[in-house]
Amino acid sequence: MIHLDDTHDPNRRSWVESANDPDSDFPIQNLPIGIFSGRSGQLRAGMAIGDSIFDISVAHARGWLTGDAAKAAEAAKSCLLNELFALGHRPLRELRWQVSALLDRRGALREHAQAAREVLLHDRSKCTMHLPVHVGNYTDFYAGIYHARTAGALLIPEDPLPANYKWVPIGYHGRASSVRASGGMVRRPLGQQPPSTPGGKPNFGASERLDFELEMGFYVGAGNALGEPIEIGEAHRHIIGYCLLNDWSARDIQRWEMFPLGPFLSKNFGTMVSPWVVLADALLPFRVPAMSRGNDDPAPLNYLLDTADQRIGGIDIALSVGLQTAKMHRENETSVEILQSNARHLYWTPAQMLAHHTVGGCNLEAGDLIGTGTISGPTVDQLSSMLELTFGGMKPVHLPNGEQRGFLENGDEVVFTGKCHRKGFVSIGFGEVRGRIEG
Amino acid sequence: MIHLDDTHDPNRRSWVESANDPDSDFPIQNLPIGIFSGRSGQLRAGMAIGDSIFDISVAHARGWLTGDAAKAAEAAKSCLLNELFALGHRPLRELRWQVSALLDRRGALREHAQAAREVLLHDRSKCTMHLPVHVGNYTDFYAGIYHARTAGALLIPEDPLPANYKWVPIGYHGRASSVRASGGMVRRPLGQQPPSTPGGKPNFGASERLDFELEMGFYVGAGNALGEPIEIGEAHRHIIGYCLLNDWSARDIQRWEMFPLGPFLSKNFGTMVSPWVVLADALLPFRVPAMSRGNDDPAPLNYLLDTADQRIGGIDIALSVGLQTAKMHRENETSVEILQSNARHLYWTPAQMLAHHTVGGCNLEAGDLIGTGTISGPTVDQLSSMLELTFGGMKPVHLPNGEQRGFLENGDEVVFTGKCHRKGFVSIGFGEVRGRIEG
Repeated sequence: MIHLDDTHDPNRRSWVESANDPDSDFPIQNLPIGIFSGRSGQLRAGMAIGDSIFDISVAHARGWLTGDAAKAAEAAKSCLLNELFALGHRPLRELRWQVSALLDRRGALREHAQAAREVLLHDRSKCTMHLPVHVGNYTDFYAGIYHARTAGALLIPEDPLPANYKWVPIGYHGRASSVRASGGMVRRPLGQQPPSTPGGKPNFGASERLDFELEMGFYVGAGNALGEPIEIGEAHRHIIGYCLLNDWSARDIQRWEMFPLGPFLSKNFGTMVSPWVVLADALLPFRVPAMSRGNDDPAPLNYLLDTADQRIGGIDIALSVGLQTAKMHRENETSVEILQSNARHLYWTPAQMLAHHTVGGCNLEAGDLIGTGTISGPTVDQLSSMLELTFGGMKPVHLPNGEQRGFLENGDEVVFTGKCHRKGFVSIGFGEVRGRIEG
Repeated sequence: MIHLDDTHDPNRRSWVESANDPDSDFPIQNLPIGIFSGRSGQLRAGMAIGDSIFDISVAHARGWLTGDAAKAAEAAKSCLLNELFALGHRPLRELRWQVSALLDRRGALREHAQAAREVLLHDRSKCTMHLPVHVGNYTDFYAGIYHARTAGALLIPEDPLPANYKWVPIGYHGRASSVRASGGMVRRPLGQQPPSTPGGKPNFGASERLDFELEMGFYVGAGNALGEPIEIGEAHRHIIGYCLLNDWSARDIQRWEMFPLGPFLSKNFGTMVSPWVVLADALLPFRVPAMSRGNDDPAPLNYLLDTADQRIGGIDIALSVGLQTAKMHRENETSVEILQSNARHLYWTPAQMLAHHTVGGCNLEAGDLIGTGTISGPTVDQLSSMLELTFGGMKPVHLPNGEQRGFLENGDEVVFTGKCHRKGFVSIGFGEVRGRIEG
């Protein structure tokens, strides 16, 4: 089912030397797409390569992109990728192939490209990244079963893993307008918090239990018409690429507001994504079987069952969360890793989420963002929110500099990274999603 | 607080005779705005007047609109009203004033307008109405307390009115992509239904408990920046107009999926609105105090409390639901009214919903659609969904032709209408939202 091609060849090297550093997130085997601006402030579509950004519009203007890749570059001119994503995989695949050839140390056109490097490549550290799409609709799932168990026990002690969990890929609609790209400040939200005594008046003020949630996001490519479900065997055709996603959460507000209709103000003050869209094609070498079910677990219903997708349902992505407190920031200490997890720990696969989302007829649109839900792992150092990691704030995390944290404090910066490793392949990464709390 | 002006003058009459019919939803005192297409298929912005549609683009092209009204007409050229709504009340208010003067039997420019009536007015019965905005975000509240009590008792017997209900204007994010204008077919959604025996395998198939929910919707005008709440005293500045809203619901799917994150597939197969946006200005004579709290009810928290809005918090809108079965359709019988309610029966006002929505920093955008939640009244003939009206399907509704209904069957058409009456004023209406079920 998985067809690897030259773009995955581990022997391929780029003439952009920083891309050949084994620690780079963006070797020539990756080539994620995004929207950036340089000094001029003008927005453009580009692909990350090592420490640089490849400017798609320059390559297009020089006539180096042909056929579907030229079509892709044309669609990306609007500087929002919705139109390009709507075309499905083929133009992006062709674009990635042709850019890969242009950047290849042995590519046919490399001399032209190299000669133009001053305009073709931008210094990534001097560019600003933007949200790659207009997010028309944002859905967040709850597919991390270790999260559902742990957070459930803290938020809903009487029913930690709901009866429907192993049948229904549970999801809810999130707020699209407040999705933004990595970077900048996150304002601590005001809201109602649970009454101090049952039946009493709720407290009101800035959230005292501000948290992150470590998730992956994926973007819809070609959508579906209202009333026409996407079958699971076709779902991969509609998933164009992936990102890291921080579902900022206010636990006190959430606990008080969420019954019976789900989270609202506790989430809609902001959701952040890593700005580079790692294309599904680039992730092919890192696909793994869906999480294996326990012996007592039910088989998915037919519409969620697909032999092919059961084989390549998951993705092996090592995830990491770092924290830099205000004190560390002042003292020029870099963030410390507070947990690790892996995208393998999802009970439901992206294809299952997509098939479920549309089975009742809901129409997906190009550029829709879908979050997986928090991806905790089975061990205590893989719990992927402060709520879980600190057992609801009861067991603070101890940092190397002597500070400790229950929930997030003002000035704390949270950074997620993600990386795919597989023996015989060049590792590829996601860049980062980073945000700092302000009071 | 309420400033009435000439546009509300009950003595005003239009030279469009059908607008003077006391039964018309669209007298000169109303002038709702919408997007229509005629025979050419070209979309345009218009205002409903009697049996006709006033073509804003024609009036603009003739130079009859000046100042802010011309600016409004210019913004409406895109044939989606987001851009116009983003300008706030003033341009729309000026447009409504000037169109009212053009259509007034005694207006200064009426002779010009009347002479151009062949191009200025379109026969409403020959036009197609469209969704008036691109719905960037759709939020649905739960502000009908009689609905919350009744539906709660059926869906969540252990906790019919949640502990937070009288403190929190409960809301959730709905699906924006599947919001559409009145008319056409609603496909019965597939989905998982509760297992026949607890712990068993869920059933899968077309929903057997398909339902409507009678709601009002309102549109956001000028939005707010992320992180900057709208204070309740300012909320009315951000609410541009109102519509009727049918929150189609699949009760069996809802019951099984909704814990813990709220409704998803049970709602996202389609939400329908009446296509005419009745401007907040036109509704001023029909504002009423917010629903009076019971003696045991808590006062709203400060951010939800506003003296002005407490006085003009609600709107008196008589609501009606009609049903036409397939048999009635075949036999040319019109729909029969199965229930009546009133928008007064909302525990939380639109201003409270808006203030709550933004208090944590969530950014609203022009054209965002906000539903009130189902507006049931206190008596059994005011229960505004089949779930409530039939006590969960147990007590079917008996129709005059001998048919009966628990939930909706294929071929059933549901139609909502709404009308404002007040002694000394001309009644204004909302038109309708209508949809037929297909299997």
